[in-house]
Amino acid sequence: MRGGCVETSCKVIKVNPREIKLVERFDAESFRSFLQNRLDLGEFSFSLTSLRKLSHFLRQEKPFKGVFVKEEKGLVLADLLEEESPVYGLAIDLGSTTIAFYLYDFERDAVLEESSILNPQTKHGEDILTRLHLARKREKLEEIRLETLEAINQEIERLNGKRIYYVSLCGNTAMTHLLLGLPVNYLILEPYPPVAKWYGVFRSLEVEFKIHPEGRVFIFPSAGAYFGGDLIAGLFFVELYKKDAPCFFIDVGTNAEVVLGNRDFLLACAGAAGPALEGGIFSAGCRAEPGAIYKVSINRASNQVYLETIGGHPPKCMCGSAIIDLMAQLFKEGVLSPEGRLIKESWRERVIETDEGRAFLVYEDGQRQILIKEPEIKAFIRSKGAMFCILSLLCEKSGLSFADVEKFYFAGSFGVNINVSSAVMLGMLPDSALDKAVAVGNSAGLGALKFLKHADFEEIKKIVDSITYLELNTEPRFMELLTGALFIPHVNLDLFPRVKSLIERS
Amino acid sequence: MRGGCVETSCKVIKVNPREIKLVERFDAESFRSFLQNRLDLGEFSFSLTSLRKLSHFLRQEKPFKGVFVKEEKGLVLADLLEEESPVYGLAIDLGSTTIAFYLYDFERDAVLEESSILNPQTKHGEDILTRLHLARKREKLEEIRLETLEAINQEIERLNGKRIYYVSLCGNTAMTHLLLGLPVNYLILEPYPPVAKWYGVFRSLEVEFKIHPEGRVFIFPSAGAYFGGDLIAGLFFVELYKKDAPCFFIDVGTNAEVVLGNRDFLLACAGAAGPALEGGIFSAGCRAEPGAIYKVSINRASNQVYLETIGGHPPKCMCGSAIIDLMAQLFKEGVLSPEGRLIKESWRERVIETDEGRAFLVYEDGQRQILIKEPEIKAFIRSKGAMFCILSLLCEKSGLSFADVEKFYFAGSFGVNINVSSAVMLGMLPDSALDKAVAVGNSAGLGALKFLKHADFEEIKKIVDSITYLELNTEPRFMELLTGALFIPHVNLDLFPRVKSLIERS
Repeated sequence: MRGGCVETSCKVIKVNPREIKLVERFDAESFRSFLQNRLDLGEFSFSLTSLRKLSHFLRQEKPFKGVFVKEEKGLVLADLLEEESPVYGLAIDLGSTTIAFYLYDFERDAVLEESSILNPQTKHGEDILTRLHLARKREKLEEIRLETLEAINQEIERLNGKRIYYVSLCGNTAMTHLLLGLPVNYLILEPYPPVAKWYGVFRSLEVEFKIHPEGRVFIFPSAGAYFGGDLIAGLFFVELYKKDAPCFFIDVGTNAEVVLGNRDFLLACAGAAGPALEGGIFSAGCRAEPGAIYKVSINRASNQVYLETIGGHPPKCMCGSAIIDLMAQLFKEGVLSPEGRLIKESWRERVIETDEGRAFLVYEDGQRQILIKEPEIKAFIRSKGAMFCILSLLCEKSGLSFADVEKFYFAGSFGVNINVSSAVMLGMLPDSALDKAVAVGNSAGLGALKFLKHADFEEIKKIVDSITYLELNTEPRFMELLTGALFIPHVNLDLFPRVKSLIERS
Repeated sequence: MRGGCVETSCKVIKVNPREIKLVERFDAESFRSFLQNRLDLGEFSFSLTSLRKLSHFLRQEKPFKGVFVKEEKGLVLADLLEEESPVYGLAIDLGSTTIAFYLYDFERDAVLEESSILNPQTKHGEDILTRLHLARKREKLEEIRLETLEAINQEIERLNGKRIYYVSLCGNTAMTHLLLGLPVNYLILEPYPPVAKWYGVFRSLEVEFKIHPEGRVFIFPSAGAYFGGDLIAGLFFVELYKKDAPCFFIDVGTNAEVVLGNRDFLLACAGAAGPALEGGIFSAGCRAEPGAIYKVSINRASNQVYLETIGGHPPKCMCGSAIIDLMAQLFKEGVLSPEGRLIKESWRERVIETDEGRAFLVYEDGQRQILIKEPEIKAFIRSKGAMFCILSLLCEKSGLSFADVEKFYFAGSFGVNINVSSAVMLGMLPDSALDKAVAVGNSAGLGALKFLKHADFEEIKKIVDSITYLELNTEPRFMELLTGALFIPHVNLDLFPRVKSLIERS
């Protein structure tokens, strides 16, 4: 292993000082000779911290450890430690709602703890744009930076931060700007230029993380205003850029961000299809929380809607995945028309009239009604149509059909929770997704974690630089495609052969 | 000019934002394209400080400045500034007695101010070894580090430190250890290993200098315990390593450090010959201060000793150079024998008996006597003999004679103040030094200053690595040579043909 090829962000080398001959005229040079000749370590430089400890460690009896951190331009001997001191890394997924942490032990190659906290920025609003508008003022940007930093530092201190020598952090472009205190004034103005693409490796003191003072902080780069470090980390984790056959990588949040590609190309697109998949369009929708309906099935004949709630509490609201399941069933049963209308005659007890138009009554008790309303369904159809069109457009632009796509990687909770067949039934995902869907979990966080083990700057740069970004706003073909997708599942039923056969059978 | 060839430690580039097209998807990339394509600047990276300012500066009307600092592995855009803000560098010569500062304006290529302060370590004793022994204790090392740092930081703050983006500092190996807080426990034990050879470039925060937070600090490397960064800076300034013909570089402090060499070789040696040249052996000796005798001439016939003192004050003590002048005259006049005895008969009024043996009475008034004592003269002879032997030995080892040496570069105040012919008369310097002596001033400080303008890491590394150090302790030839040199000027008078002819004439 040559220094240039050290893969891990932080390499820990155990040294027995009795094996080291102090033959050189300088202690540092004796240690360097030993490491390079005996352990085949490549070039590295010494931190001041390591120089301050070196002479004593070289002359002690007990073995000790050298902690090397990887920078873009080489290895640095950051610190020397007694044998029993652990050396940790920390991967951080800076989400706009939740900040997730993975504490990693470099020597044991093990995740010691996963935790998450609420992003304190949420107090300024769930919506990222609201926060960005606030942060146009310099003082407010600094206020938001400091409150984000403080929340992260609280968690770092709880995790014994002084033992952390490397942080790998990813966040979307807005989150990265707010964390680093970069101005967002132009990020919200056409053509939405982020300040920078590549941030690289900072000293802990520069970004004010309360890890070890010699610790380093890698911030994942942005490929654009709508394609941030979280996506890059996700691609790094899923390794789309290494696949032979083209695959989709689909990350659903406030936006739906989609990449189609393989080792030859990466074509990316983002659109407001996110809420369709997250169920954010529905007033009855909510996150997975106690009382949320997460499973639903209907029996029209017996006028039954069977529900399961988280924690078994009385129903309060519905998870996005449950809403999608419900709509797919309503469509299959003929309660929901291809245009998104609720057909009163099909289920008179449940399709009711409200001030906001027709609605499907999911649940009712003395205190509350849980309703799925027709205007919400219309909005959902627009959003699911956008999702389908993004996928279609990416295929079209790559000269591919859905059949050519080998896998659909779903990042985040969506892939884990959603019933892909329901999404296909509604025409949100193509028919072929049914057999090809793979849930990859929190790919952003896992990508950040992967960096701790495999700090390949060049590979990450290659990802960023090889992404071609497709701008929907300026793409006339998108509106053409959308027209056909504003039905359930689609104007052209032949695009959804399995849905077609299901409908025909029912 | 390519980035890799930027010579100055800190490059300031004026930019007119109206000339920059924001064509790239990222502000940083637009700026990079502009600098690389329009100004032919090479690779560089952005500091967080520069990223925080970039977007606003790019969109202002007024021109602004980019401040690039040179690291070993490339350029960093450290900061962006309004056009009128100055960009300074600071060269520091960390002497064991005096700390000298040179404030440098990078854009005007001008030294704005030279200043010096007392090294606060002197309160622990003039002697460096005393300080090193104190600093063996960890708390004491930290105390000395902090007091040195505080003294330097006071001067930095007085010099408007936040405008300083680069510090270039040299000091001997002990001073460098104490400043950086490196353990000195082994530096004082055979074989005297310094902690490190190469320190490289630190962030200001690492070494706790109160310059600009993005400022960098270069510390000159050591070639050994007795051959520190001050010497390396001196060689860098004098450019011995570029000369065609071999030259001597002689730096006189507590030790006399001597290098003989040219572009082909650098042979170095240090010995306790320093006091001979500084006059530190004599109880009547002192630094240049009010009342110090700096000029002396004798007239035996009229029993006169003519003195000139600094500030015209009543005589208090004698500068080293005046003592040497006086001894040369006493020798020439036959008052001082070649063995270093004062000949009473030669000048009965001035050669007097004291409790410490014979002495020459330089001056007397109601309050004080200024005496040069025989035991001091004996010690001086040992010391001047060592100096001559170091020079002889270096020539011998290089297969050269003094005639082959083109120049004698004298660093520090010695070369400026001393009468070289007196030193030759006493056999301290070879006869040929008379025509070849060049006083180069404070070459350490000037070498540090040169680095600000010409930050050539490779050249400095080459100097350090090409020095061969000759250990006097283990060199039998040194003692052989010394025997002949314990006379004035030498046992072999043919080595000093001009002195010989002077003596013969008198």
